[in-house]
Amino acid sequence: MTDNVLSFTKDVFDGVTVKSTVSFEKDFENTVPNTELATKWLETSIEFWKNQHYNGVWFEVDLKHIYWVPILAQHGFTFHRARDELCVMIRWLPEDKPNTLPLYPFTSVGVGGVVVNKKGEVLLMREKRGSYLGWKFPGGLADPGERISEAVKREVLEETGIKAEFKNVITFRHITQSLYEKSCDLYFLCYMTPVNEDDITIVKCERETADAKWVSREDILKLSESGEIHHFHMIILDRLDKLLQSGRNGCYQEQFSFKAGSSTRQWDMYFVD
Amino acid sequence: MTDNVLSFTKDVFDGVTVKSTVSFEKDFENTVPNTELATKWLETSIEFWKNQHYNGVWFEVDLKHIYWVPILAQHGFTFHRARDELCVMIRWLPEDKPNTLPLYPFTSVGVGGVVVNKKGEVLLMREKRGSYLGWKFPGGLADPGERISEAVKREVLEETGIKAEFKNVITFRHITQSLYEKSCDLYFLCYMTPVNEDDITIVKCERETADAKWVSREDILKLSESGEIHHFHMIILDRLDKLLQSGRNGCYQEQFSFKAGSSTRQWDMYFVD
Repeated sequence: MTDNVLSFTKDVFDGVTVKSTVSFEKDFENTVPNTELATKWLETSIEFWKNQHYNGVWFEVDLKHIYWVPILAQHGFTFHRARDELCVMIRWLPEDKPNTLPLYPFTSVGVGGVVVNKKGEVLLMREKRGSYLGWKFPGGLADPGERISEAVKREVLEETGIKAEFKNVITFRHITQSLYEKSCDLYFLCYMTPVNEDDITIVKCERETADAKWVSREDILKLSESGEIHHFHMIILDRLDKLLQSGRNGCYQEQFSFKAGSSTRQWDMYFVD
Repeated sequence: MTDNVLSFTKDVFDGVTVKSTVSFEKDFENTVPNTELATKWLETSIEFWKNQHYNGVWFEVDLKHIYWVPILAQHGFTFHRARDELCVMIRWLPEDKPNTLPLYPFTSVGVGGVVVNKKGEVLLMREKRGSYLGWKFPGGLADPGERISEAVKREVLEETGIKAEFKNVITFRHITQSLYEKSCDLYFLCYMTPVNEDDITIVKCERETADAKWVSREDILKLSESGEIHHFHMIILDRLDKLLQSGRNGCYQEQFSFKAGSSTRQWDMYFVD
């Protein structure tokens, strides 16, 4: 390490990571550095990393140290990803090798609950706002760290007040051009049944749900004929019927503990039976 | 519209979107505005949007107009997402309603190709860099806009030189804590066969691939016993055997054209048979 090089850590891909939180504490002795000083340290650091043949630089800027962002942009950094109070900018260093830094995450995971009660009625709802205001299965986006089966239970409960049990994934959909520019969308349709068949009273979410009801198959067909429900839902219900008639498990979730190096992680595996 | 309000568009969720590219052209008459002027316009705009009962503000900052970022951060904006030359910051306006802005995308889609030739040998490779350096199925991350079947074909070809055909998804894995903080990982294992069984010569990628070879089931078992391949791969191969013995289609991809409003979009549906 030489003088005036920002504190960094190395990764297994010959890259370096700088955190603005660490740099403030270690390199600037807890004082708020001025733009000139930060620029000087950054330029010295880039030169040092180049000489040491590092590939990529990952610079994590905390919202508290936001003034780093324009400085980094002026020094060839682009955005990798950002969320809440964190923005990560990257720069590829070698001039003779192609940039192999992994792309930003761009996929949203959505879940839809196809909840069927013992009378064979399906739980449908209509959103208050959005681009599609017809009838649909309750559902929404998974949160970070949330399992598909948990996300769909939470969304169904939030939107309709119904507690339902996850059975399996009936089918999933991949839209390669989605919500935001350059974003993708994976949507998992899950077969569910009410936890308590004797208490299936709907309680709408005042904020999100315009309407919700249990609908018989006959009435869903009528909604389809009058254009009040998108044909997509009919395809899903057909698939569900096929699966239930086959007596197979479908695409079900199993939780595994996997050892990777010294750490153990929980993974969900989806097996197709 | 009043004076000194930044150009914006409305969305169906009662939100407004400001683009730095548009604001520069329309509001600042192509001159580079100073921080003071931008701050004044922003404060006037926030007041105006609040009075009009808008919910969320989406501010898209182009790398060319990067100096907006610190100004926005100082005015209660946080990061929604960022990539390449675009950074999107958001602010929720109502003080009496919970923030319902959708979260940033946080899921990476990975693909692995389980390529089996007519002799029953499986295509395996080892990475040059990374946290796992044992034998594995070739694969990698999907690009934005890329279908799962296309991504897996591209990755297998890049890493091993083998042209292979996508058959179906054998199984998929969901890791809810992944590569980056607060990120998730969906990994689709795809059954594939060589396009041309008479030409299955491996050509390694110099940049990424340490080694690659066709391995018999007997030898994979030996690799597993000596700890040179993670047990995960054995689970996948067991599932593949089960699927092939059943004679079923597994989880296969079908492309649909869906009409949503006035636009038609291509979707991939994955059906489980």
